[in-house]
Amino acid sequence: MTTFAFLGLGAMGAPMATHLAKHAHAHGHRTLVWNRTTTKAEAHASEHGSEVATLAQAARADFIFTCLPTSAEVDEVLNAMQPHLRPRAVWIDCTSGHPAAAVRQAGQLAAADVTFLDAPVSGGTAGAQAGRLTVMVGGDPSALAAARPHLAFAGKVEHVGRTGAGFAVKAVNNALLGVTLWATGEGLAVLGRAGVNLEAALSVINASSGRSNASENLIPQRVLTREFPPTFALGLLAKDAGIAVDLTQSVQGSAPVLAQVAALLRGAQRVVGAAADHTAALKLIETMNDQELR
Amino acid sequence: MTTFAFLGLGAMGAPMATHLAKHAHAHGHRTLVWNRTTTKAEAHASEHGSEVATLAQAARADFIFTCLPTSAEVDEVLNAMQPHLRPRAVWIDCTSGHPAAAVRQAGQLAAADVTFLDAPVSGGTAGAQAGRLTVMVGGDPSALAAARPHLAFAGKVEHVGRTGAGFAVKAVNNALLGVTLWATGEGLAVLGRAGVNLEAALSVINASSGRSNASENLIPQRVLTREFPPTFALGLLAKDAGIAVDLTQSVQGSAPVLAQVAALLRGAQRVVGAAADHTAALKLIETMNDQELR
Amino acid sequence: MTTFAFLGLGAMGAPMATHLAKHAHAHGHRTLVWNRTTTKAEAHASEHGSEVATLAQAARADFIFTCLPTSAEVDEVLNAMQPHLRPRAVWIDCTSGHPAAAVRQAGQLAAADVTFLDAPVSGGTAGAQAGRLTVMVGGDPSALAAARPHLAFAGKVEHVGRTGAGFAVKAVNNALLGVTLWATGEGLAVLGRAGVNLEAALSVINASSGRSNASENLIPQRVLTREFPPTFALGLLAKDAGIAVDLTQSVQGSAPVLAQVAALLRGAQRVVGAAADHTAALKLIETMNDQELR
Amino acid sequence: MTTFAFLGLGAMGAPMATHLAKHAHAHGHRTLVWNRTTTKAEAHASEHGSEVATLAQAARADFIFTCLPTSAEVDEVLNAMQPHLRPRAVWIDCTSGHPAAAVRQAGQLAAADVTFLDAPVSGGTAGAQAGRLTVMVGGDPSALAAARPHLAFAGKVEHVGRTGAGFAVKAVNNALLGVTLWATGEGLAVLGRAGVNLEAALSVINASSGRSNASENLIPQRVLTREFPPTFALGLLAKDAGIAVDLTQSVQGSAPVLAQVAALLRGAQRVVGAAADHTAALKLIETMNDQELR
Repeated sequence: MTTFAFLGLGAMGAPMATHLAKHAHAHGHRTLVWNRTTTKAEAHASEHGSEVATLAQAARADFIFTCLPTSAEVDEVLNAMQPHLRPRAVWIDCTSGHPAAAVRQAGQLAAADVTFLDAPVSGGTAGAQAGRLTVMVGGDPSALAAARPHLAFAGKVEHVGRTGAGFAVKAVNNALLGVTLWATGEGLAVLGRAGVNLEAALSVINASSGRSNASENLIPQRVLTREFPPTFALGLLAKDAGIAVDLTQSVQGSAPVLAQVAALLRGAQRVVGAAADHTAALKLIETMNDQELR
Repeated sequence: MTTFAFLGLGAMGAPMATHLAKHAHAHGHRTLVWNRTTTKAEAHASEHGSEVATLAQAARADFIFTCLPTSAEVDEVLNAMQPHLRPRAVWIDCTSGHPAAAVRQAGQLAAADVTFLDAPVSGGTAGAQAGRLTVMVGGDPSALAAARPHLAFAGKVEHVGRTGAGFAVKAVNNALLGVTLWATGEGLAVLGRAGVNLEAALSVINASSGRSNASENLIPQRVLTREFPPTFALGLLAKDAGIAVDLTQSVQGSAPVLAQVAALLRGAQRVVGAAADHTAALKLIETMNDQELR
Repeated sequence: MTTFAFLGLGAMGAPMATHLAKHAHAHGHRTLVWNRTTTKAEAHASEHGSEVATLAQAARADFIFTCLPTSAEVDEVLNAMQPHLRPRAVWIDCTSGHPAAAVRQAGQLAAADVTFLDAPVSGGTAGAQAGRLTVMVGGDPSALAAARPHLAFAGKVEHVGRTGAGFAVKAVNNALLGVTLWATGEGLAVLGRAGVNLEAALSVINASSGRSNASENLIPQRVLTREFPPTFALGLLAKDAGIAVDLTQSVQGSAPVLAQVAALLRGAQRVVGAAADHTAALKLIETMNDQELR
Repeated sequence: MTTFAFLGLGAMGAPMATHLAKHAHAHGHRTLVWNRTTTKAEAHASEHGSEVATLAQAARADFIFTCLPTSAEVDEVLNAMQPHLRPRAVWIDCTSGHPAAAVRQAGQLAAADVTFLDAPVSGGTAGAQAGRLTVMVGGDPSALAAARPHLAFAGKVEHVGRTGAGFAVKAVNNALLGVTLWATGEGLAVLGRAGVNLEAALSVINASSGRSNASENLIPQRVLTREFPPTFALGLLAKDAGIAVDLTQSVQGSAPVLAQVAALLRGAQRVVGAAADHTAALKLIETMNDQELR
């Protein structure tokens, strides 16, 4: 019997842990769950047949999954669990973490004979609920091969490189999300000032070469509707774009557009608040153009 | 019998004129064609049943289509044709033109009782050949209603606003094409320097929130293959992004990312040449990062 | 006897006209003044011995000086004065105008045998009052030679090129003012967040390689004091930076930093108001960093 | 008798150590010198009365000065010297180092009862030779008070905040150097394309509001002359601008212009080489504008 532990039952983690628990149940395995707020873990256990665990108990699992806000929270649980870890376990960190943290954490875990995989996910809460997340994995391929059958929340799993590469790809993806969102917002603000019908403009762009996930989905569903549903916080997007900046710095690369947008997202976060949906960053564009996007 | 004239048989115009000529043939109409280099017009006439015309002859058509490099070339033919225009004709300019030029040209044509529609297209040479172009139209809706049945090259026709709005939307669309292309190039250059597998990274991004037409189509097909097939010139993309800058200026808008990318595209054009495919702009990113995208 | 006309008695124009009137008086010449609000012209006449004139009367002067908000206002007075102009007169436009407007206006005036010089000034209201302005002149050198003895408000006069060159240099200078102001504001905001003493930091920067007029004068006198005295409006600085963008576009140049800052200044104008002092643009930086500059 | 050690006899360090040695000689103190390439230390000793030392010997000094390329080299010597340090010594690091490294190094030295001051300098090789450098100091004020009489190479000493603040101010200063240099280069490139006389334009700007150290000194002396004398390497400026980016990240600030320029400088470094003078960054602007700055 294999034991899984899943730490972090947030908007993404909870449905991911549910898929894991179903998978475990179907194959006769156990699933331990841990959450900073224990009531969430208790609710998960009672609904999905997982078991509430302390960090020390979770540390004894064969496969440890983490899905936490940032690498700093992973450090915290890792430090608490370090003395209790089981040799030859695999730690799969689905946090949108920091590549430099991954390297450090992998080293720390290696001392306990545990293998670290950075395995952030993409697909949002909808993808998590459907069990169709894209998982981008950095680290040892044989550890990934061992973990692969248990990534029950995944639609697509891609090994992208050595330790930290998963976080790097995720940071760049989210920076590109930020760029497409922001630039499309700029374009629409200018068109709005020119008296162009924005729904028609967006319809054309989405049938043309300038289209992106932001133009096809986010802006029509969240911005033009003025709903800005808070499913992915602007503070987290700004953090991710910042990780892309850190990554650029660490390899001495040159990415002026990613850098500019990361700065603007951070600025927008100060204006509309870190907890607002990431699409609300466009409210700063609206202010700077005196033009509502509707 | 209705007479069409099509001016400008370039990579986009030639297949568009072919669809128009087929449509005309099927409905008992005539199609006149004109091209700066007459041999192209003669070839078109012999292959597709159109008729070679002088500018004076083309000026007598009921529907005049132009598909030229920039608004400057439209000005040239318009000035030459002005004395010969037929009242109540409709001029459909499919050039990726300038909104300010549209307003001026519409005024000039109104004096001859001709209605101007700015009607740029999107979809590339493939879309033109398939007759599935997206057409974004600015100007008088009733003139568009009259022209609509004859837009034989169109898959989607969208009225986006008053005169110049079509060009404005096209400029913004192409600026967004530039932004997504450039920013994705930056992201991949940084990932490449970090040792990440770029094909795997792109595969993940294209299943995630940072995807765009550039990441899904242009970069895998044209950049990673190192082919850079010259179908849409960088000089024209830089021109279009520049029109978006002009548009921003004319409405006193604020679009820092579009402005930055327009400047970088212009710079890239100086480095790799105006005639190179637009995707070759990423060669400047490669140089600035000492990292090939492959 | 030579007749001067000075049009536009604003914060800059009024003291400039005063120096001109003194010069005229000393040499037995006449000075006509015109202002949109006539009371200002009347006050100037009674205080400085100039004579209030209509546009038609001013048009008969040998040297016509304009100092208006933008080239659009120059167009207005020029159109009104055109029928009355004296052949072989020289028109010296001290407006921070647009290079393209200069070329057009010079052509229009040439038809009346009047020579146009674009001659914007730098030095602020203090320089105007002291008669120590820097004048950057584009256009015919012999017309400048004729006008030179009468530039009574000038400390330094520099011929920088053909028609429009004066406006071009002024636009670039003001764009650089915007860049240094904005970038220094960013740097101080970041240092402030890091707990650094901003007065000490600025003192060091002003003894080091990163210093500029903005760091040496504007920020210590206007920003750190929280006074933001409204002597040069942000709306005008944003307009000037925009002219630098237009200039870049007209020569198909690549200036990503000037373009970015022009966009940010325009955005700041929407946030703090066009009438605020240009240094108040830094309030947007403060908001985006949640950090006051004091 | 007080013993000084000076480590790092490069273009800046050598003349700084000379001033220190003179000061020591005048007051009956000793000066030890160390350099990675020992011949430089031997030459210094024979010329200036200092004494060549090993790292272990230098570690016994009362005041240890370091002036090395980056914080990484400081880490190396610090690690080697750690076992030999004298309690209550003061370590004055004049490197253009990293604020985060300062905090770490200060902690490491505190364990040996040694106080770390980050004390980077500004003024270039000319200022170093003249003994008129500006020193910006972060860390314990009483340690600075003890060291202050021995900063024989300083014209101005400013305490700017706690540990790391000196490096932070230096990084921001150099980022501003980069911004002013780059933006002025852009402006001149555009003016050059417009046919404006660049020497005249610069003369005007330097009498106007857009002036900076870059426009007043660097560009006329190094760029327009086409000399680009290699006194301050572009690779080091790009590194410093990158430290400003890291600083911005560490405080979650928003500095879009500093970020863009840091990226462009890094890109320019790839094009013209890290060893070129920092002013040679403008060669990338020249290429992107097809316009030489002369």
